[in-house]
Amino acid sequence: MKAVWLQGGQLRLRHSVPVPEPPSGEVLVRVTRAGICNTDVELARGYYPYTGVLGHEFTGVVERGPAGLQGRRVVGEINAVCGACDACRAGRRTHCERRTVLGIVNRHGAFAEYLTLPAENLHPLPDSVSDDAAVFVEPLAAALEIQDQVRISPSDRVLVVGDGKLGQLVAQTLGLTGCQLRVVGRYGPKLARLEARGIAAIRPDAVSAGAFDVAVECTGNHLGFGLALKALRPRGTLVMKSTYADTLTFNASTIVVNELTLIGSRCGPFPKAIALLLDRAVDVESMVQAHYPLERALDAFDHAQRPGTLKILFDIA
Amino acid sequence: MKAVWLQGGQLRLRHSVPVPEPPSGEVLVRVTRAGICNTDVELARGYYPYTGVLGHEFTGVVERGPAGLQGRRVVGEINAVCGACDACRAGRRTHCERRTVLGIVNRHGAFAEYLTLPAENLHPLPDSVSDDAAVFVEPLAAALEIQDQVRISPSDRVLVVGDGKLGQLVAQTLGLTGCQLRVVGRYGPKLARLEARGIAAIRPDAVSAGAFDVAVECTGNHLGFGLALKALRPRGTLVMKSTYADTLTFNASTIVVNELTLIGSRCGPFPKAIALLLDRAVDVESMVQAHYPLERALDAFDHAQRPGTLKILFDIA
Repeated sequence: MKAVWLQGGQLRLRHSVPVPEPPSGEVLVRVTRAGICNTDVELARGYYPYTGVLGHEFTGVVERGPAGLQGRRVVGEINAVCGACDACRAGRRTHCERRTVLGIVNRHGAFAEYLTLPAENLHPLPDSVSDDAAVFVEPLAAALEIQDQVRISPSDRVLVVGDGKLGQLVAQTLGLTGCQLRVVGRYGPKLARLEARGIAAIRPDAVSAGAFDVAVECTGNHLGFGLALKALRPRGTLVMKSTYADTLTFNASTIVVNELTLIGSRCGPFPKAIALLLDRAVDVESMVQAHYPLERALDAFDHAQRPGTLKILFDIA
Repeated sequence: MKAVWLQGGQLRLRHSVPVPEPPSGEVLVRVTRAGICNTDVELARGYYPYTGVLGHEFTGVVERGPAGLQGRRVVGEINAVCGACDACRAGRRTHCERRTVLGIVNRHGAFAEYLTLPAENLHPLPDSVSDDAAVFVEPLAAALEIQDQVRISPSDRVLVVGDGKLGQLVAQTLGLTGCQLRVVGRYGPKLARLEARGIAAIRPDAVSAGAFDVAVECTGNHLGFGLALKALRPRGTLVMKSTYADTLTFNASTIVVNELTLIGSRCGPFPKAIALLLDRAVDVESMVQAHYPLERALDAFDHAQRPGTLKILFDIA
C-alpha cells in the first residue's frame, strides 16, 4: 500500500508498504481521509524521534473486524493501551505505561491506505457527519479535554492564546460554555473567522495583565506562554494545550507569588466530540483549506506549514 | 529604635530608626523574637529590590492597639490589604492588588524593636506557645496552604523535595494527613531529624520516576524542580512552594504529555498553624539553632546561610 513514511527526519511517499495484519483484538481500517496536525509537522522536522507511517487524525471504514464494526465508518482514539499497568488500572488509560500512539509512538499511523487499531479504540460515525468533519474528532476531543480538567463557568473570563487550528477548536468548544471568551492572534483572516462566529478576537498588545481567570496556551511557543502567564489574575489557571518542541524558560516566581495553576492537557473524549459534530455545535469543515492525495504528501506538508494555513487533508480513498 | 536595614543590596544595623507611628486601623507591636527566612536571605543578596527594615516571621506584644489586643502576645499575617480591589472583593485577600507585605514589599519589617500592622492581621497567641515556636506560625501557615490547594488523602504517595527549613515544615504538616510521605534531601542530620519523627527520608538518586501522586518543591532551584517533575506519575501535581530567585528552564512537553498540574503556593492560614503548635502536633522549636541580638545581624545572616543550617532567630526584647 502507499504510505507517508518518516525516517531520520526525512518524509517520503513509499509505494509498497505491506498492508498491516491486525494482531488479536485489533481491527483493519481502510483510511478514507486524514488530517495534518502540528505534531506531524514537528515530527517531520525531526523534533522527536519517530520512524514509520505518520498521521493520527483520520476517518475510515472497517475492512476486517468484529461484527459490530465490520463495514462501519469509524474514527479512532490514538492511544493503544495495555489495560494492566498502574495507569490503566487507575483509569488513566491515555497514560498507559506501555502505550503505543498512532503515528507518534511505536505504531504506524494514518497517512496510508490502511491502519490497525484495537477494536476498543474505534467509534462508529453517524451518517450525517462528513468525512472532512470526522477527521476533526481527534483534535476536537483534545480541545474538550480542557473542560474535563478545569471547570469553566459563564462568569469566567477566558483567554485562548493562538488562532491556529488548535486555537480555533479550543475557542469554539469554550464558547459553548457561555464564558467570557477572548482569542488572541495575529492573523486577520483567522481572527475574522472567529468574529464571524461571535467570538471576540484581540491582538497581543490588547491583552490586559491580570484580567483573565483562565488562559489556554495554543501556540506552543514561549511568546504565547509568556502572554498567557501575564494575562492571568492571581490564582488563575493556565492550560498548556500545545505540543512544545523547545524547552520553556520562565520566571517561576510569578507562578509562586500569584499562586497560579498550570495544567498540561492532551487527548480527550471522542464521544463528546462526535456529539458536537452531530449537533453542528461547532464548525470544522470550513477550516479545511485543501485536499491532497498521498502522492503529493510533500506538497501537502509544505502547504500545512505556510503562515495562516488552517487544515490540510489527505484524500486517500 | 534599632532595626536591620536593607538598602541597595547592603544589610546593616541602624540605631536610630524612628519608632513607627501606626496609621489608622493599625497597631504598634513591640517585637520580641523574629526568624530569618530564605526570602530574607535572597532579599539581602539583592535578588529583589527592597529598601527598609527586613523580616516577616515574628512574635511580639501589642504596645498600642484596640482594647482586645492591647498588651497581648501576637503573631501577624504579613499581607496588609486594601479590602476594596477585585482580588480582595473576590476573597483572594493575600493577592490584594495594592497590598504591602511586611519586610518584603513597601512595608517595614520585623527585624526591629517595633513594627506596625493592621489590627485585622494580628492573632493573639495561647500562653503555652513559646516565643520560639510562635516565630514559626508564618512559615507553618505557608506549609498548610498546600492542603488548602491540593486534597491529600492517605493513599496518596507524596514527595517533599528539600530538607531545609521549608521542607521540614511541609513534611511535618503533610505527615499529619497520613499520606505515604517521602522527603528527599542531601544532608544527613536534616534527614535524621525527619526519620526521628517517623518520616521516611531518601537521597535524590533513590527517587523513582513516576512513582508519586504529589510532589512539593521546597528547594527553590532547578535541580529540585527537575527532580519533582521526574518523580510524578501522569496527572500528578507539583506544588511550587519555594521562592525562586532565578528563572526556570524545563521541558514543557513533559507537562503536556503527562498532563501534570503545577500549583504555586504562598501564604497560608494562621489559625490552623497556631492550633497545630497549641496541640504540639508539629515540632518546630528543635529547628532553632541559634539566637542573635539585632546588633549581630550580619553574623546572624552569615549563620543562616551556612549549609545545613535550619532556623536562626533574633532575640529582640
